[in-house]
Amino acid sequence: MMQGTMDLDHATLNEAAKQARGLAIDAIAACKSGHLGLPLGSADMGAVLFGKALKYNPRDPQWLNRDRFILSAGHGSMFLYGWLHLAGYDLPIEEVKNFRQLHSKTPGHPEFEETPGVECTTGPLGQGVGNAVGMAVAAKMAGAQFNTAEHTIIDHKVVALAGDGCLQEGVASEAIGYAGHNGLDNLILIYDSNDVTLDAAADATQSYDTIQRFESFGWECQRVDGHNMDEFVAAYEKARTSTSGKPQLIEAKTIIGKGIKEVEGTAAGHGEGGAKFADEARKAIGLPEEKFYVSEEVKAYFAKHTKALVAEYDAWQSTYAAWKAANADLASTLEKALAKDYGTVEDILASIPEFDPEKAVATRGLGGTVLNAIAKNFPTVVSGSADLHGSTKNYIKDVGDFSKNNPSGRNLLFGIREHGMGAMLNGFAYYGIHRASGATFLTFADYMRGSIRLAALCKLPVTYIFTHDSIGVGEDGPTHQPVEVTAALRTIPHLDVIRPADGEETAGAWASAMTRNEGPTALILSRQNLPQLNDISVADRRNGVLKGAYVAKKETATLELIILANGSELEIALEAAKELGDGVRVVLMPSAEIFERQDDAYKAEVLPADCRKRVAIEASVPNNWFRYVGLDGKVIGLNRFGISAPGSTVYNELGITSAAVVEAAKNL
Amino acid sequence: MMQGTMDLDHATLNEAAKQARGLAIDAIAACKSGHLGLPLGSADMGAVLFGKALKYNPRDPQWLNRDRFILSAGHGSMFLYGWLHLAGYDLPIEEVKNFRQLHSKTPGHPEFEETPGVECTTGPLGQGVGNAVGMAVAAKMAGAQFNTAEHTIIDHKVVALAGDGCLQEGVASEAIGYAGHNGLDNLILIYDSNDVTLDAAADATQSYDTIQRFESFGWECQRVDGHNMDEFVAAYEKARTSTSGKPQLIEAKTIIGKGIKEVEGTAAGHGEGGAKFADEARKAIGLPEEKFYVSEEVKAYFAKHTKALVAEYDAWQSTYAAWKAANADLASTLEKALAKDYGTVEDILASIPEFDPEKAVATRGLGGTVLNAIAKNFPTVVSGSADLHGSTKNYIKDVGDFSKNNPSGRNLLFGIREHGMGAMLNGFAYYGIHRASGATFLTFADYMRGSIRLAALCKLPVTYIFTHDSIGVGEDGPTHQPVEVTAALRTIPHLDVIRPADGEETAGAWASAMTRNEGPTALILSRQNLPQLNDISVADRRNGVLKGAYVAKKETATLELIILANGSELEIALEAAKELGDGVRVVLMPSAEIFERQDDAYKAEVLPADCRKRVAIEASVPNNWFRYVGLDGKVIGLNRFGISAPGSTVYNELGITSAAVVEAAKNL
Repeated sequence: MMQGTMDLDHATLNEAAKQARGLAIDAIAACKSGHLGLPLGSADMGAVLFGKALKYNPRDPQWLNRDRFILSAGHGSMFLYGWLHLAGYDLPIEEVKNFRQLHSKTPGHPEFEETPGVECTTGPLGQGVGNAVGMAVAAKMAGAQFNTAEHTIIDHKVVALAGDGCLQEGVASEAIGYAGHNGLDNLILIYDSNDVTLDAAADATQSYDTIQRFESFGWECQRVDGHNMDEFVAAYEKARTSTSGKPQLIEAKTIIGKGIKEVEGTAAGHGEGGAKFADEARKAIGLPEEKFYVSEEVKAYFAKHTKALVAEYDAWQSTYAAWKAANADLASTLEKALAKDYGTVEDILASIPEFDPEKAVATRGLGGTVLNAIAKNFPTVVSGSADLHGSTKNYIKDVGDFSKNNPSGRNLLFGIREHGMGAMLNGFAYYGIHRASGATFLTFADYMRGSIRLAALCKLPVTYIFTHDSIGVGEDGPTHQPVEVTAALRTIPHLDVIRPADGEETAGAWASAMTRNEGPTALILSRQNLPQLNDISVADRRNGVLKGAYVAKKETATLELIILANGSELEIALEAAKELGDGVRVVLMPSAEIFERQDDAYKAEVLPADCRKRVAIEASVPNNWFRYVGLDGKVIGLNRFGISAPGSTVYNELGITSAAVVEAAKNL
Repeated sequence: MMQGTMDLDHATLNEAAKQARGLAIDAIAACKSGHLGLPLGSADMGAVLFGKALKYNPRDPQWLNRDRFILSAGHGSMFLYGWLHLAGYDLPIEEVKNFRQLHSKTPGHPEFEETPGVECTTGPLGQGVGNAVGMAVAAKMAGAQFNTAEHTIIDHKVVALAGDGCLQEGVASEAIGYAGHNGLDNLILIYDSNDVTLDAAADATQSYDTIQRFESFGWECQRVDGHNMDEFVAAYEKARTSTSGKPQLIEAKTIIGKGIKEVEGTAAGHGEGGAKFADEARKAIGLPEEKFYVSEEVKAYFAKHTKALVAEYDAWQSTYAAWKAANADLASTLEKALAKDYGTVEDILASIPEFDPEKAVATRGLGGTVLNAIAKNFPTVVSGSADLHGSTKNYIKDVGDFSKNNPSGRNLLFGIREHGMGAMLNGFAYYGIHRASGATFLTFADYMRGSIRLAALCKLPVTYIFTHDSIGVGEDGPTHQPVEVTAALRTIPHLDVIRPADGEETAGAWASAMTRNEGPTALILSRQNLPQLNDISVADRRNGVLKGAYVAKKETATLELIILANGSELEIALEAAKELGDGVRVVLMPSAEIFERQDDAYKAEVLPADCRKRVAIEASVPNNWFRYVGLDGKVIGLNRFGISAPGSTVYNELGITSAAVVEAAKNL
């Protein structure tokens, strides 16, 4: 908020709100799809936010100290596009006219990196609330890490706008609990409380006392009329300057679809239904005949407002320059972090000591060792767990836990909130300073899949540490034995899934994750101990992972059979190969996704096309292996869930054995 | 609760609690794994519940009017096994001694149908709370449907025991919101409030005011000392007899791991850590040296208590017999429903009218028509939607909405709570009277995957209606275009995934779902209109789906090429086939899972082994098609997310076209 005053130019802001309503009506009428409810219902708040309250610079949407504004209710995308256009972002009126058309900057739901001013991809409900909480944690942590006694370079707010849909979702509930517990007072959540959801009046499905709910989670709350600009700006200012140490909720009562008499205040106002009354509504609102109308007066207002914003931006740039001059190392760390520069694969690998070749250790434990080696060199590497640090082994030593009183702590205690964790990790990645990872049992990757999908869609460099990777989990039984989850993760585009077989492969897997800026990486780690694969050199194992698949044991006679495996089944594959003779090659394939990115020559070298006798083994459903064994091959896998018994017993009981590989090979 | 008194035999119940603690310590020490925290911390409540408060008959665990007891905190399984053993269920002490061993009735986490008295599979946190809410809805609905003015045959309670982990989870939060809104006063949730989670003291991750939270959702709440049997039984009795019309929360303060001094009250008390102090603890508790000790006095107590319970059971049987005699039709409906008898496939198909062959309609709309035709004949068919009935089209006409004031309404308004919906649907299926289905956009199947997995693991006959099935969604863009979700669902064992291509296939798909009692079925339906496949007879389409795959267009010359497709891509496949000539066969494969269950002869008939030229097309990631096209074939699919533009534009832009099939075929 611009300092010193809350005085509003009501006449012009009312005009701007009117024209923002017009843009939404015109854009949605033009493409006959979209959602009018929020853009119309929240237009008055939009005028206050973009015309007064938010700190931003439309000419530099990446400004480090901008307020982050997240439209969690992403279906109301025309709210965002309308106001970004009016506020002077590089989003010309032609783009607004092209709403929801191919290759426009105005897709149906806001998409990260498609539109200047859009902080994250939203639409799947509740996610934006989690993203905002993650960003608020990142901002708190960054402030603690980079601000100095002399210079404050990070002190902005994170502001999210959410509706009933977002707040009914469990992912939001988890994030709200985390935010309250951790006293994220840099977070302002505006609840567009319009008493309507897509299907019906909200009272068909909810009867919350929302303020009581948020207070029970440790938030500070206000309720205002969302159409009264003075009330709203006063509440915003109170939230912005609160010293309670609590996250801030503003419940804004609004009328959904306000401006289209035929539907406003009803479920029919939610979607595009009101567009058929566009002409009457435009007239009633007081818009001229010209479609996509923006008045000179409103343009002038925002031009002037931009000047004020840019003055604040320029002042910050001076502060930043002074901070940088006084703190060269800190500045270098920050700028590398913002550039997502964690060095080369070679750098990363060089920082990870080789493992004791004699020790059989679970890859979850080895993963923790690798993470600690990497984290030592990068203060922006952070890692969290959904109440399982003791089991997922990804605790970073000597850097403390993030909390209200220790905002520079780099271990994140997410609680038993996997979906919230996923959304918060995305928030960290959107924020862009930290390299964040989060851990849980692989079986609970399902709980956070909605967020993993978005990380992949947005190509966010998030790392997932999923341990207890299959039936080796043993006694905990089928609920905790994820026989299908790795295969299911492998269906997500842009997500790298890596299942290493020992310590050096785990090092390679982490090196891949740390240097990959094109999408998230899931590390699939074992609960049970695995031997080190000493017959393969350390370098071959580390680099082999980085190619996705490689020859673990080369045939010593004419190639007759290829056995494919990864992770804990590699041992079994090697044992079977020994029995099957000299013409057998064992291919280790920790990551099919990475392998598919290699050139054809390498692929053919690893898997010669003329060798059709192939057997794959994984303690998993077989779905993804047919690609490599074809119609003639065989997969030793599982078509059922696991069983509660000691891990090795389960392997035998379910037939994941070298004998099964040998038999399959002989029957080919 | 037995009528008339809350007087407790403290001496014996204390002794029973002590021995239940002993069983947990001995079982967990024996297998060196498991969780001591809850069985020890909740032992005193266990004594009250199984020794006094709950209504059950250990000799008939399926008694229709028993109280349902759900251990949502399933990791505390020894709580349940210990008390089921003491209460006289068919769970001999040998099974307790075999805790977590192969083929025992005492798996690591409670598993449905593995152990008498276990109502559902729990362990994945929060699910049990959702299951309990679903069961409470089912019980309310069944009461409204089957009780008469003269006879009450269903009036039991649903009682769940949950810990901090369950209540932090979003899925529980969603279910709690639903329960409060719908006034489920037959639900009693006991919160084992021990201030500790797996990783740490609970105050590391939460600072809720739990009672305030539940009150904000419309629950009635009490807080008691969980080790004070009198306090607890009084609270239970108050909850049981409350006339507030609200679901009941009892927050019971307990000491985790109570009985093992070295760990009690700390995170170390949560798991098996305390087992190493077993000997000292057994002594301190006052147990004899004999392991797995149960005293004669405790046996006598439960023998006597069983008599009282059986008397109540017998009285109910008389009521039931009288009700049945007076209401033959109702009784027949109920008994068929309990037997999961919805007739034969032929019966179901006969009830569904043929579709207008001239009309192109979206399969979501056709699915609604089919559901309505089926629902007309079965009052126990219910269907819900996560605030999307208007889009998912599965509203059952003329049967009303379930609500506090209309408990016989058969449409379930789940709100924007997909994961909660999934868990509640499982609750319906566990309860066993209703055939429940639930709907959302396919892309949000990810949100509820944790529950879908459990439905599959427990082989529950739940039906999922997932609409808006791929890039045909169009303008809503990549967040709403589930390019990988169908493939990911196909990785879940026991789940049938069916993607029909037109109305008659949709009829077949529903017939399959209605007659399958071995697991859940996911129907994958289109948003966009699809033509009816009139070149194939109605019977062939309906029955073809029931075989998973069939020949949609037979070659008229020597077979040279097979094109595989399903759903909305069938049209494209047929167009390509026309261009490619007479030797082309088109195979329609709506369900690979069902096809894999056919005999080898049928499979070979549909996909002759010697035809290696194969092209598959689906607007999906290709993962699951390689099984059918092999190393020589080609899949026209997607290796990326979608794009926001009109649906047909997206198809062209992403290359899901007949031209691509033709080109691929020519290049084979």
